[in-house]
Amino acid sequence: MPHIPLPEGLPGIRGLLAFSPETAKPIGEFADVLLHAPNTLSPGERELIAAYVSHLNACTYCHASHAAIAACHLQSEALVASGIQDSEHSSLSPKMKALLAVAGRVQLGGQFVTAAAVERARTEGATDREIHDTVLIAAAFCMFNRYVDGLATTAPTDPDSYRQPASFVAQHGYTAVLSQVRPSPTGEP
Amino acid sequence: MPHIPLPEGLPGIRGLLAFSPETAKPIGEFADVLLHAPNTLSPGERELIAAYVSHLNACTYCHASHAAIAACHLQSEALVASGIQDSEHSSLSPKMKALLAVAGRVQLGGQFVTAAAVERARTEGATDREIHDTVLIAAAFCMFNRYVDGLATTAPTDPDSYRQPASFVAQHGYTAVLSQVRPSPTGEP
Repeated sequence: MPHIPLPEGLPGIRGLLAFSPETAKPIGEFADVLLHAPNTLSPGERELIAAYVSHLNACTYCHASHAAIAACHLQSEALVASGIQDSEHSSLSPKMKALLAVAGRVQLGGQFVTAAAVERARTEGATDREIHDTVLIAAAFCMFNRYVDGLATTAPTDPDSYRQPASFVAQHGYTAVLSQVRPSPTGEP
Repeated sequence: MPHIPLPEGLPGIRGLLAFSPETAKPIGEFADVLLHAPNTLSPGERELIAAYVSHLNACTYCHASHAAIAACHLQSEALVASGIQDSEHSSLSPKMKALLAVAGRVQLGGQFVTAAAVERARTEGATDREIHDTVLIAAAFCMFNRYVDGLATTAPTDPDSYRQPASFVAQHGYTAVLSQVRPSPTGEP
């Protein structure tokens, strides 16, 4: 049960966005720039970083959501699952493997990102911008995961529950999600 | 030395905001809503939560910056220092002590926030909104700290270096900071 009263029928971060429209607006815009807007890292690659960090933080809702969105973009649930579970032995590009390694260090804490980990990414072709974006995406999911689990929001257990919302986000991005999360008539606050 | 080339003379997150104006805009607006906009938790109380979590994450720049901003608002560097180092024995209100305890659990991970920790805050007078905001501020600094340290930004060692920028932020808020962080003529990118 969530630690604060949240609207029914809006699992994970969706209930929180409905509870707090003031913070939802910049959060939606931030997520859109970070994950959906044009970038040399594809939306699928960026969603994979998000799902990987959420997995490391054991955040069921964010892991399932962003893995589903990544799979929409990359058109393969198997590739996403292998990238999250064991990226070094997956069929991801050497650059993505190196960026996921950087993201994994960010999850532990900023001080764990070594010059060697960054150099590996650069050697595999990552630009300064891509290194910056990888660190910020990984850091952002250390926020989103704590927001979602720190208030004990609900997470559907059925994988199908994530596929349809994922398809919407993959197509329309994150600011569009804000219009979907309106408090139910009986919801709080 | 930072992991990516950043403008000279802009320590901590300021260099990153200059490097990436696209993400800086929603980040500035988010920080403003979270820490500076009207709220039943005062700006000083919210900055104290930010400084406390930054201390737990051992993020020198964010700890020093937000402790200085909290001290501007609360008009006491000693109260802020004692609240961060040992809040339970400080002269903070029972409600603030309980909210800092919630924030400390968020820093460990969202799953560490127990119903008992939330109930203690509620018993001490915290509203649902204040519990929500405390969790989100603590989560947000698990992002900001990783962003700042994950890219190895610089942090001044002189406490005076933080007082003047703190006074500006305390007075004008975070969207105003964005106009201060323009890349230097020789800076990257």
